[in-house]
Amino acid sequence: MTVAGDRRDVVELICAKRDREPLGDEDIAWLLDAYVRGEVADEQMSALLMAILLNGLSARELAAWTAAMIESGERLDLSGLSQPTVDKHSTGGVGDKVSLILAPLVAACGAAVPQLSGRGLGHTGGTLDKLESIPGWRATLSNKEILDQLESVGCVICAAGSQLAPADRKLYALRDVTGTVESIPLIAASIMSKKIAEGTSGLVLDVKVGAGAFMKDLERARELASTMVRLGRDHGVRTVAVLTAMDVPLGLAAGNALEVAESLDVLSGKGPPDVVEVTLALASEMLELAGIEGADPAARLADGSAMRVYRDMIAAQGGDPDAPMPRASFVHAVTAERAGVIHRLDALDVGIAAWRLGAGRAHKEDPVSATAGVLLRAKPGDAVAVGQPILELHTEDDSSIPRALAALDGAIQVRDEPYAATPLVLDRVLE
Amino acid sequence: MTVAGDRRDVVELICAKRDREPLGDEDIAWLLDAYVRGEVADEQMSALLMAILLNGLSARELAAWTAAMIESGERLDLSGLSQPTVDKHSTGGVGDKVSLILAPLVAACGAAVPQLSGRGLGHTGGTLDKLESIPGWRATLSNKEILDQLESVGCVICAAGSQLAPADRKLYALRDVTGTVESIPLIAASIMSKKIAEGTSGLVLDVKVGAGAFMKDLERARELASTMVRLGRDHGVRTVAVLTAMDVPLGLAAGNALEVAESLDVLSGKGPPDVVEVTLALASEMLELAGIEGADPAARLADGSAMRVYRDMIAAQGGDPDAPMPRASFVHAVTAERAGVIHRLDALDVGIAAWRLGAGRAHKEDPVSATAGVLLRAKPGDAVAVGQPILELHTEDDSSIPRALAALDGAIQVRDEPYAATPLVLDRVLE
Repeated sequence: MTVAGDRRDVVELICAKRDREPLGDEDIAWLLDAYVRGEVADEQMSALLMAILLNGLSARELAAWTAAMIESGERLDLSGLSQPTVDKHSTGGVGDKVSLILAPLVAACGAAVPQLSGRGLGHTGGTLDKLESIPGWRATLSNKEILDQLESVGCVICAAGSQLAPADRKLYALRDVTGTVESIPLIAASIMSKKIAEGTSGLVLDVKVGAGAFMKDLERARELASTMVRLGRDHGVRTVAVLTAMDVPLGLAAGNALEVAESLDVLSGKGPPDVVEVTLALASEMLELAGIEGADPAARLADGSAMRVYRDMIAAQGGDPDAPMPRASFVHAVTAERAGVIHRLDALDVGIAAWRLGAGRAHKEDPVSATAGVLLRAKPGDAVAVGQPILELHTEDDSSIPRALAALDGAIQVRDEPYAATPLVLDRVLE
Repeated sequence: MTVAGDRRDVVELICAKRDREPLGDEDIAWLLDAYVRGEVADEQMSALLMAILLNGLSARELAAWTAAMIESGERLDLSGLSQPTVDKHSTGGVGDKVSLILAPLVAACGAAVPQLSGRGLGHTGGTLDKLESIPGWRATLSNKEILDQLESVGCVICAAGSQLAPADRKLYALRDVTGTVESIPLIAASIMSKKIAEGTSGLVLDVKVGAGAFMKDLERARELASTMVRLGRDHGVRTVAVLTAMDVPLGLAAGNALEVAESLDVLSGKGPPDVVEVTLALASEMLELAGIEGADPAARLADGSAMRVYRDMIAAQGGDPDAPMPRASFVHAVTAERAGVIHRLDALDVGIAAWRLGAGRAHKEDPVSATAGVLLRAKPGDAVAVGQPILELHTEDDSSIPRALAALDGAIQVRDEPYAATPLVLDRVLE
């Protein structure tokens, strides 16, 4: 029995959202502060999150929610840097190693890239997990180290400190176990609170769309993109979103060390054309937001200057850029059962297979394998003969192979008809 | 990120209900069992409860949910008793002391009444709290004591043991703090799982409707009533619901010892006519369900036989039926500010006032005051002169009086026009 007491307490706020009544700015500020302090219990917050997922948040409620999440922690001050700051965030896909290439590439063009990142959960990989497959590399830097490295190297990819939007850290862990992840306002607030607190002046959002992405259709992806662009703009961060396809894994590698190796290929001026295309599209957007004109990112890949920044960045964080990348103990090839042209190579299924092989984690405290993953030997549009390898499963635990194969059941389609390629960059969202 | 693992786990069940997909019978059985065992966390269950509140439960899901709640504990076996068993449950109102009179009255007519009850929370009182204002009376009995007392006295009002539908106990405490109380299927499952586990053969539901009740309108009350009647029937319990008005407190007393005193008036063949009317209406329904023909409950009040059973029941549970009832240290009268006829005396406001005076609890572990409450000196339809007392506030803590008065702001309406009485018993629901 809930009856009005003297003040609007947490149960009344839950009931208000449940009954589609608006939450006030002060209600939201109090709520998130009380949650971080432990005064609002997890079981109360999860009930509210489900009510938000089902009944939504108005633009005003979302603005207050995001502001309260930023206010829950510290905000980095990057205004003293000599270069303009610009960052990129991807909503997560399979084989999306673009950050590893993009940060040094944009730095090589003259911007400072403060990429504070997270770890992978479920079938999508995490940038920090990938870099941690490099011997010696460390993800945790102090604020001073971040600022010094941005000044000296031009880019940093490191863990977001525990003082950056701590409300988001606590909320995300709760949403993960309570079926409340898939809410556009909650996703937008989570991403944007961290990026705004990080202190970047410009932000390019890579919103992935398709089978292997959070957002399965273009309409919801566009809604998420414009929600985030508005939040960024309201907080003085120049923000643009690019919608990119995630029906097929990006590049050929899905897995931590496998993706570092592929990133080195791209930084050497080679690598899979889809990775290069997405990287250059995002680089152009970032440079435009940073106000850097006349830069030629493709040339910076070709001439090795992006690679030099990458090597400096890895070395600055204790990593050995010359150390050989570890390789898996077991490699199992999946071959074509019929001849024809590959039409489908489902990104979600490949992501789940890589996860089961050890590349990802089910719980946030689980370790990940550096070497595990899936390496594609062909992609949609490629013709294959019977018995020709389509992909390889890499793992340290060969007992995981049957479960990975089960995830791939139906993932690959080979047909007789020719394959019509679809665009990779689908749209730009400016507001 | 939620991705299908090997089995349908709790997050997948939450997501299914969130996305309006059906939950299977085995899913529900596993879920409630895992929740009682602590394998499903409170924050997961509260998210699911909110999804259920907003998206509903199908008849099939509700049947499985209720069955799983019964299965979570033991089921009393009353089949060996020499009298037919029949019980009553009220959804809770202000001044609803009917159980105290009804159980001995129906027992005096030849049925056995196994009334396993709860405590009050919020503005509605609890039967056990009321009886505990009698010196020496104890609410907790063993199963053997319950059976022995049903055989020897004919009725028992006691606490539902912790082994009776323990899932409900845990769920109710969670719903109370997470804004998930007001769900018709969850209310129906909570009430019916306990009553079915209690082992009664017949059950009369008093579904209260109006300002002071859970159900504010007749339509929702009817929906709750027919949901519960169907659940009872499906589990072999003959069940009837009666809808009764709860816009005005029932009788003149709202508070623990105050309500015991009023119950004694009714058991003496006197007492407020509305309490007598509801009691006799429910008694007829119970006797019909028990198959007892030709009984005359009004005569059993008049001839003192119901009072004798009541005194035996109190004494059998350690209470002293002759002990003077405790009285409050402070009594504050609220008088009429103008002359006229009382048109409104809001049950919810009176309930909140009684709660604030100490009669109720905000949290389930709070103590309640035996003497605190509100005593009405007039009811709708009564003419009052300026300065004539309309009600009295009783409390042990005079600092609570201003907050009780604040709750009563606007609760009383005095007008010049005559008052048109409205019916007390609104409807019967047989399926």
